[in-house]
Formats: sequence, structure tokens, C-alpha cells
Amino acid sequence: MRFIAFSSPSGPALGLRLGEELVDLTDAGLPATLEPLLREGADGLQAAKDVANKTHARIPLEEIIYLAPLNAPAKAIAVGLNFVDHAAESKFQPPTYPVLFNRFPSSWVGHNTPIVRPRVSTKFDYEGELLVVIGKAGRYIDASCALDHVAGYSIFNDGSIRDYQTKSTQWMMGKNFDRSGSFGPEFVTADELPAGAKGLRLQTRLNGQVMQDASTSSMIFDVATLIALISEAFELVPGDMIIAGTPAGVGAARQPPAFMKAGDLCEVEIEGLGLLSNPVADEG
Amino acid sequence: MRFIAFSSPSGPALGLRLGEELVDLTDAGLPATLEPLLREGADGLQAAKDVANKTHARIPLEEIIYLAPLNAPAKAIAVGLNFVDHAAESKFQPPTYPVLFNRFPSSWVGHNTPIVRPRVSTKFDYEGELLVVIGKAGRYIDASCALDHVAGYSIFNDGSIRDYQTKSTQWMMGKNFDRSGSFGPEFVTADELPAGAKGLRLQTRLNGQVMQDASTSSMIFDVATLIALISEAFELVPGDMIIAGTPAGVGAARQPPAFMKAGDLCEVEIEGLGLLSNPVADEG
Repeated sequence: MRFIAFSSPSGPALGLRLGEELVDLTDAGLPATLEPLLREGADGLQAAKDVANKTHARIPLEEIIYLAPLNAPAKAIAVGLNFVDHAAESKFQPPTYPVLFNRFPSSWVGHNTPIVRPRVSTKFDYEGELLVVIGKAGRYIDASCALDHVAGYSIFNDGSIRDYQTKSTQWMMGKNFDRSGSFGPEFVTADELPAGAKGLRLQTRLNGQVMQDASTSSMIFDVATLIALISEAFELVPGDMIIAGTPAGVGAARQPPAFMKAGDLCEVEIEGLGLLSNPVADEG
Repeated sequence: MRFIAFSSPSGPALGLRLGEELVDLTDAGLPATLEPLLREGADGLQAAKDVANKTHARIPLEEIIYLAPLNAPAKAIAVGLNFVDHAAESKFQPPTYPVLFNRFPSSWVGHNTPIVRPRVSTKFDYEGELLVVIGKAGRYIDASCALDHVAGYSIFNDGSIRDYQTKSTQWMMGKNFDRSGSFGPEFVTADELPAGAKGLRLQTRLNGQVMQDASTSSMIFDVATLIALISEAFELVPGDMIIAGTPAGVGAARQPPAFMKAGDLCEVEIEGLGLLSNPVADEG
């Protein structure tokens, strides 16, 4: 199943995509956001499918104003340096333990919405990443059953303000500028993809030029390992997001650097998950 | 004004403290949490006071089961190494820019509730800190008017799992174990304290022994400066929390180290803000 959060005339709404059309689940009486469905587990998602199959009205995809699939997770955890070649270009050793930080929901927008370069920096960088959404709660989850806790996947652009990221040892500021990242276009349930979303091609393009090109199988810590290690600190709950790390090719590591500026178009594509596209705007 | 979140027979509730008694604002028709009142600004808080003055029922404080004053902030931002002597004992240079990370709400409990040492670590440390709560939204807030954006203050014990804090360069994991920190006992509006909560004595005691003893005036980055710098990255909104950093004396820096264990009692007291007391428990 493929869910799309969108802006309907009556407010935020949740839809199920069927081919090139969308069924408005919210109009059919279901919640306006994905979080409550995730809390109901597989039954919640299946109920959405059943409602969709009984609903005849369809909205053409090209008319949709996309929102981020989730805007109020209890936790959004991002992974740094999770590809050997990106660790190397960033002048770090490959980590032996995941490098983990957070993103606040105010730091991301949905598909097609501009991502924003703040007026205090010119070092606005892209990072195409696989996003994991938790569907079943758990603490101290064993890696062998960790994928049972995954509801599905999406794409995240972990947009970063590089000079702020390194103003102190902690990256939080540079990873959390308002509307500096993006998330979408849709939430895809795990059953539509290979186990652990392995072997998917991930590509980031800036103005059509390929900047990052890798397989999700090249992640140092795979999805199951991340869930096992992260859940040592806290219970993972439905809707929690794990933003799984970016491969080599970021703008800051290029000679000369390739930072994003107003008028650019940044696209992240992951096989089976679609295309997340965002124009770049200067802060108003 | 002094607000206390508590557990009433009918669920979570918000009270206003008058001396040694509490008025149940929720029972009188106001919201059950502080967040919506903060979003109404000074008027919201004043409305609470007006309701309290008209309400005759009083609950003795000693009967209260405390909850954390806030459990769903949009953002909770913590400051590392914000006292020269604590930076030195942690083997860091005093920072020239604030060291900032996040805490998720699942990582804190209220006054009198046990804080929890997880089964995966013995390095459970205390950090007594001043907590700032934002009352007025703003981005790029100038330090000269930053205190206008403060609704009030409280006490936070930034409980840390030291070995997890340093498993990678990013401290997030070690700062976010479930129920490892605490917050309370109450939220005190800014008008009850000196401007910027300066000059307040902060003391942390473990089993009655004084472990940290400092003045909030010794913070490297004061409240106004923190607000100015943090709001460069994102809009601060009502209910956002800034956990302002701990002075010297943490358990990890002692010889021998003094980590918390089951049966201990950890108390953080800040002049004018009360006493935040938590027993320590092992994870069940």
C-alpha cells in the first residue's frame, strides 16, 4: 500500500494511491494523518485499503498538493556516516557504532514544497536517504525480529546547513533549520519492498546531475541492526522515524563544493519508493 | 504563578499552586496541560490565575502525584558544557558556541517519580540544570529582547547514560534513555524570578551529599544569548524547552566516579524554583 498525505480543500488529508489516482481516506471517514492508523498496526493499514476499495471517488495524482507523510512522530532519529564512502569523504573513520542525532518535524516539508536556504548560511547541502517508519512498539528489540517492527519506508532529504552543523561537536543545529529537509512523496508499506529495503538503488540529483548513486545494501548498519541498537535506549513506538544515512557525493565534499541555492531543483529517487523532488528557495 | 501538572482521579490535570495548596484548574474547566495555556501567551496564564481565585476547592500539596510540567513540547533543546568548570572536568575547552542536542519527552519523568537506570549500563549520571520555557514565538530573536520570549522556568535533571553518550561523536543516545531524566516540580512564571533567572543558586545532592553547587550566573551562555543563537536555526514556539546546562560535579568526573544506582535519591534545588527530587530505580 502507498499512502499520501495531502492538502485537501477541507484541510490536511490522507489518501491511498491506486495507480495514478488517489482515494481520499479522510473524506471517507478515516483519520487525516497516518499516525493513528500506524498505532492500530497492520489492521489499521488494512482497514484503509478496505475503505479505499469501497470508495469510488478518485483524485488524479497531478492535482495533489503533497504534505510530509508524518509530521508528529514521537521521535525522528537520523543516522550519520552510515556509508563507508560518505564517512571517507567527510574525513571520518567508518563508525563502529551508529552516529545518531535527531530531527524536529519543523525541519522538513513534503514533496514538491520548496526547501529553504536560511539567510544566515550559504552552505545548504542535500543528503538523500532511506527512511524507516516503525509500526510495532518495542524495547531491546533483537535484530533477528527487528523487521517485524517496521511498518514501511519512504525517502528523506536530510538537508543540512554545514557551517552550523560543525559550530560545536553536536550536529543538531545544522540538521534542524526550519524547512531545510524533505520527506515523501509517499509512505510505502514494507510488504511492497525487499526485506529491510535492501538492494534498492538510491540516487540524488541536483538540477538533473547525479550527485549520489548507491545501493541501500551498502549501509554499514542495516535497518534491522539500527532498530536493535537504537531500541536499547528507548522504546520505539509506531510512527517513530529512522532516517538511515546518506552515501557519498554530498555537496560539501566536492571540489569545488556544490551547495544548493535558490532556483535549484533537488531530487532523491529510491527504487520502489518513488521520487522526492523539491525546489530550493531562499528564506523570505 | 506556579503551575503543577499532576495525576488526578480523572486523569492528568493542571493546577495552580497557592502556598501549600493546589487549585485544580482542569476541574474548573481549563486544559489538562500547560501547552495550550502557553500558546495563549500571558493572557492564558492570567486567565488561569483568575479561575483559581474564583475556585474554592483546594488540594493539599502533600497529596499530589506530580507529572512533568510539559510532556509534548515541539522541541526540547539541551545545552552541553555551559559552565567553565564542568567543561574543564569533562576535558573540553569552554565552548565558544553552545553545544546543543535534544531530549525526547520519553526521556523524562516528573517530581518524585523514579528515574531509571537501564539494564545495559551502570554509568547513570545526574546533571542539575535550569530549564527555560518559551512563551512567545520568534525566529532570529535579538538577545536584547530575548527574555520577552520566556514564559517561565523550572528545574531539569539531565540524567545521562555516560557510556552510551560517547559511543559515537553524537550524544543523543546517552541523553535519551527512557525515564532517565526528570523535570519539575513546577513551572514558575518569569515574573517571579530575576531577569533571565540570573543569580540563582543551583545545587544537586545525591543521598543528601552536595554534588553540584553553583550560580546560574556562571553559565557561559546566558538565557538571552541561548535564545538568540538557537532561534537562528528554527522558530522557537510556545512550550519549547531549553535545558540550560550543568555545572561541575557530575558523577563521571569524580574520583572514584559516583554513578546513581537503585535506592539512591537525587535532588536538584534551584533558588526560587523549588526542589526536584527523584528516587533511582533499576529497570524492571
